[in-house]
Amino acid sequence: MKPSIWIVDARPFGGAPMDIRVTETSIDTIAPHGERTPAPGDSVIQAHGALLLSGFVEGHTHLDKTTWGMPWYRNEVGARLTDRIENERAWRAHSGHDAARASRALALEFLRRGTTRLRTHVDIDTDAGLRHLEGVAQTRAALADVLDMQIVAFPQSGVMKRSGTRELLDRALQHDADVLGALDPAAIDGDPAASLDITFSLATKHGKPIDLHLHEPGDLGAFTFDLLLDRVEAHGYQGRVVVSHAFCLGALPDARRGALLERIARLNVALLTTAPASVSVPPFREARAAGVTLFGGNDGIRDTWTPFGSPDMLERAMLIAMRYDLRRDDDLAAAFECVSVEGARACGFARYGLQEGMRADLVLVDADTVAQAVAMRPPRRFVMANGVVIDQDFTR
Amino acid sequence: MKPSIWIVDARPFGGAPMDIRVTETSIDTIAPHGERTPAPGDSVIQAHGALLLSGFVEGHTHLDKTTWGMPWYRNEVGARLTDRIENERAWRAHSGHDAARASRALALEFLRRGTTRLRTHVDIDTDAGLRHLEGVAQTRAALADVLDMQIVAFPQSGVMKRSGTRELLDRALQHDADVLGALDPAAIDGDPAASLDITFSLATKHGKPIDLHLHEPGDLGAFTFDLLLDRVEAHGYQGRVVVSHAFCLGALPDARRGALLERIARLNVALLTTAPASVSVPPFREARAAGVTLFGGNDGIRDTWTPFGSPDMLERAMLIAMRYDLRRDDDLAAAFECVSVEGARACGFARYGLQEGMRADLVLVDADTVAQAVAMRPPRRFVMANGVVIDQDFTR
Repeated sequence: MKPSIWIVDARPFGGAPMDIRVTETSIDTIAPHGERTPAPGDSVIQAHGALLLSGFVEGHTHLDKTTWGMPWYRNEVGARLTDRIENERAWRAHSGHDAARASRALALEFLRRGTTRLRTHVDIDTDAGLRHLEGVAQTRAALADVLDMQIVAFPQSGVMKRSGTRELLDRALQHDADVLGALDPAAIDGDPAASLDITFSLATKHGKPIDLHLHEPGDLGAFTFDLLLDRVEAHGYQGRVVVSHAFCLGALPDARRGALLERIARLNVALLTTAPASVSVPPFREARAAGVTLFGGNDGIRDTWTPFGSPDMLERAMLIAMRYDLRRDDDLAAAFECVSVEGARACGFARYGLQEGMRADLVLVDADTVAQAVAMRPPRRFVMANGVVIDQDFTR
Repeated sequence: MKPSIWIVDARPFGGAPMDIRVTETSIDTIAPHGERTPAPGDSVIQAHGALLLSGFVEGHTHLDKTTWGMPWYRNEVGARLTDRIENERAWRAHSGHDAARASRALALEFLRRGTTRLRTHVDIDTDAGLRHLEGVAQTRAALADVLDMQIVAFPQSGVMKRSGTRELLDRALQHDADVLGALDPAAIDGDPAASLDITFSLATKHGKPIDLHLHEPGDLGAFTFDLLLDRVEAHGYQGRVVVSHAFCLGALPDARRGALLERIARLNVALLTTAPASVSVPPFREARAAGVTLFGGNDGIRDTWTPFGSPDMLERAMLIAMRYDLRRDDDLAAAFECVSVEGARACGFARYGLQEGMRADLVLVDADTVAQAVAMRPPRRFVMANGVVIDQDFTR
């Protein structure tokens, strides 16, 4: 058996100081500080009372789109969704864009800042075919020992408008994709029932979960959401579907929203929010009170769509807290759950958490409480992913 | 005459490389890079093509309330405005809070991150009297050679509810306060016309500008706003009034909002926004198109009200851009104007900007464009305030 690594005098989520023993890829012991003695040959990392967090979970990003590590992209794009889709297609064609290189640069920065589990959407379209998927799959393979990455086959132009998309998604699901993506069945495909039927047909054929990006507003979005839930029920897909964005849930009359949330909870569909400041968002307290899993992500990071986003999930937790006007320490800790335990539950990342037997994904920062870590986003003192030390700096 | 300081090969707002000569407290020359030769005895700072920005302007903060530099404040406060006001009063009484020490710690951090002009609101109330004002005035005096600070005498509990407040404001305006603050004349004082009359009576007596914090929602806020504008007109206070927050302007029917914005522009009243993600905000493009000055600030920074806020005004510009869904490079540059030239215009900070004859407030960062600086908030390579080098680090 390999020697263990001890992280001593660390405060899990701001609690009492503990010593954590990591063996191979797992947390095998969590004991009160000083109670146990490391064996000869074990490594010991002194945390000096730092706050210990579980590795962060990025629930929704697009590693294949980023310009991270490239020269600054000057955004001169029009404001419509179609402008942005077409602009990106043109940029990829002339920029020498390489999804493997781009995704790897950003994935490494996620790791350095403490994210150890990540769901990325990868564009599947009739121009690029599976090229972006193959590039991101290379990054996943290169980092497989440390970063737990789920790849979503995402039809950025819908499943019905471009002939051949369905076949490409089918091939993606045969190969590298873990999850089937989907996009605005009404607003993009123009035929919500048929579009959703294609999505469920593909997903059930491969036994893969679904992640639907639903930007449709108000009553239209709620209509589409109900069509989706009908199919979740019909196909027994409870617990296997995420609806990303779901802006509509922030713009419905109370009774309609309450009834829809109740159905979402009953069918165990999870909601992903980036907590955008400029559009309506699913209600935070009401969703959690209804038993709905609400988790967080960046969406694109510094790409042709947006100059914003950050591989620091503490920043995303801060933006979630600001969007929902969460100010109390306990509420900021709930915002942190969106980029940790709630994300792991929604995406199905296994062995997640600061408990014995779980995967050794550990982050140390200088902070008293989880809330302070969210508000201040301090430098990472120490990051471990799947038992591997990614970064360590107690001098900063 | 003192020797000059040259900043050479710097790109003002991302333009062509220039050499900037600073003599005493002023920019005295801006010339194309390499065209002029520094005199013997001048200092030369090599910018290596870094982006040159004008010093930032914080348009609305509360230096006296911050816990900056103190242990983390665990927020367990109720959600109502009155809970927060009472909680803060209790905290100040038992925490040994010292407005001089708190304000100085935060003001220094503002300087280090490139803010050289700052408007701070300081609580005036019948418990504390002028104690907070005196503390912040000490900080202003200590940093007078570098930080251009305006102090607003701010009645955090309104002007009518606590007997003696009016007299305290009167004394504040006789002494250290540059501006008279006011708060929700309807929602807090319960008598908007009378409250506004007191405010204008005090302000005109001392010839001081006004900064009204207007959180009142929708139609109530618009009603109060019109009462204010009536008095701006009656007292000839055009160009001397700021309305902070003005949430109501984000929640009115189009015609009502348009008419109100037109009147605001005509009476040259400026709007301050923190760009909060969780409430409605004045419209960005529409306000600017109407000719209204819209500028930015933090409000409180890490105090008993909020765990958020940052002395980095590039972060505030980013939050402004995110709140208004600004993504293009030119739009992000407009967001930066909210924490620079628009703030200076609204508050009346003199000699502001990157032109010859202006005050030498200069910031260098590694970025191609202003937009990149806003999105990435890179470390400051160099900060100069009023001709004084505050910080310089080209090694990071």
